[in-house]
Amino acid sequence: MGEFDLIDRYFKRPARQADVGIGDDCAIWTPRASHQLAISTDMLVEGRHFLSTVDPARLGHKALAVNLSDLAACGATPQVFFLSLALPRLEESWLDGFSHGLFALADAHGIELIGGDTTQGPLNISITVMGDVPTGQAILRSGAQAGDDLYVSGHVGDARLALEAFRGLVGLPQAIFESARLRMETPLPRVALGQSLRGMATAMADISDGLLGDLGHILRASHVGAVIDWPACQPLLAASQTWPCPEALALTCVLSGGDDYELVFTAPASARQAVLDASNRSATPVTRIGHITSDTQLRVLDSQGQAIDHGLRSFDHFA
Amino acid sequence: MGEFDLIDRYFKRPARQADVGIGDDCAIWTPRASHQLAISTDMLVEGRHFLSTVDPARLGHKALAVNLSDLAACGATPQVFFLSLALPRLEESWLDGFSHGLFALADAHGIELIGGDTTQGPLNISITVMGDVPTGQAILRSGAQAGDDLYVSGHVGDARLALEAFRGLVGLPQAIFESARLRMETPLPRVALGQSLRGMATAMADISDGLLGDLGHILRASHVGAVIDWPACQPLLAASQTWPCPEALALTCVLSGGDDYELVFTAPASARQAVLDASNRSATPVTRIGHITSDTQLRVLDSQGQAIDHGLRSFDHFA
Repeated sequence: MGEFDLIDRYFKRPARQADVGIGDDCAIWTPRASHQLAISTDMLVEGRHFLSTVDPARLGHKALAVNLSDLAACGATPQVFFLSLALPRLEESWLDGFSHGLFALADAHGIELIGGDTTQGPLNISITVMGDVPTGQAILRSGAQAGDDLYVSGHVGDARLALEAFRGLVGLPQAIFESARLRMETPLPRVALGQSLRGMATAMADISDGLLGDLGHILRASHVGAVIDWPACQPLLAASQTWPCPEALALTCVLSGGDDYELVFTAPASARQAVLDASNRSATPVTRIGHITSDTQLRVLDSQGQAIDHGLRSFDHFA
Repeated sequence: MGEFDLIDRYFKRPARQADVGIGDDCAIWTPRASHQLAISTDMLVEGRHFLSTVDPARLGHKALAVNLSDLAACGATPQVFFLSLALPRLEESWLDGFSHGLFALADAHGIELIGGDTTQGPLNISITVMGDVPTGQAILRSGAQAGDDLYVSGHVGDARLALEAFRGLVGLPQAIFESARLRMETPLPRVALGQSLRGMATAMADISDGLLGDLGHILRASHVGAVIDWPACQPLLAASQTWPCPEALALTCVLSGGDDYELVFTAPASARQAVLDASNRSATPVTRIGHITSDTQLRVLDSQGQAIDHGLRSFDHFA
């Protein structure tokens, strides 16, 4: 099987949204009028973003999920995507699993693969996704205001808990481990919630490098600070509902875990009911964990209102 | 230096065309009305697409050039691009050279870097470019008609000649080698010619895998065949102007060399003067090398009109 057979067999499907899909020098696509494009790209490398033992279907899911999560963070509607793939060798069972995981998530979001590239090389998956928003309605990192509420979607910290278990640094009951591992390997991009928050959230980012780190991007872009109420955060760790997670580990996982692909966002206190409605409409839980301040500090307070010296850092690929 | 410092120092420049450039979850960009987008992505891997010894500025140039060449092949106008980069380590001199080579070519084509990703991993460069064409004017592979003239831009085969010399399979005079090496390492995407051929060329592709292979894409997509006049092709090899290239080597380099990033295109015989005008307007030489036939054969004829049994194949990453 050669390069073009590989593309035909695993990745080429009839063009629906594209004017010209896979098979020409370029894909040709007509964006919707009165919309801006939202575009993001992520590169996943074996040993860095995933383990070599990961199930290929889960990897196909995750490679697209982390990109869709960026669209979600802007409130965008996914439209089309591009896949570049470097493979050490042609392994049909791997390609079969990977493409099934990829397209299952793509179909769930109505997003179409319209181009890409394949080559031989150390395993590397690079995806570029394109979505759109009605002009002027993208939710950026820069709009948070002092006094805004601070929210997080879904669950945060379980992916890091699974990683700690993989590294042998913590022992978990089997059921807890499997559930945390699913969170790490098949994150659910919060696309519906992101769109529901248009016109409501003042700033938003997705949590890929850790809650504090990604909230930090919002604070810097908005020139504000935040107070996080740690007791409100503790339920974010799904594992803690059925397993007594040590406090120090919970702090690490929830505040600087990374790989969560949840949304952290801000909204005026006057929009609390609207945020709850958006959460219900999108069937995505949200938790209010603090508020935005006019200084530029990021403080985490314990149940006594005392600052926790967390000393935590977000993930940096070259730190 | 961390990931975000790296991006700030080497890759972040003030947004001009983008509504929101590097630094949010997505880039936000408003495409032109009454245009279709043309989008292409290419992944370059060390040892596969370039040698580890290549000058980083030339590599930065080439990584963008091969993508711009795909836009050229559709007659598109380059607009914005995205860069994902896996680096084994942070090497400032490398990043400095790479980014300078990249941006010099980007500036020459008025195209803006508006997003990307960086990570640690085996060297891998993945670029996605977006251009546009007035609606309905993209030049595809599928429009070639029996009787059309067949053209190639610029020079073809010198990149392969350089590769043969690098591999020690052929000895070249120093000046010939340096000149061929420049063709391999800093190809010139034929963007101006591509745009000039809108409304004139019936089908077009860029030559990345070899003339016969990429012409083959046009023939299959258009359900036609072609006759190539080999004597008309021989001057395409720039080196042959000053160096007596053996015939067999010339055939290999010109017909199945690859890495040329020239354009192969078809146009009606009635458009000969218009093609020459487009060539002059874009300051890009073109050579008429044959014509399109109604059968589905691809024949190469010698000066006697006899078919050359070339037995040549184009490049396939997994063949």
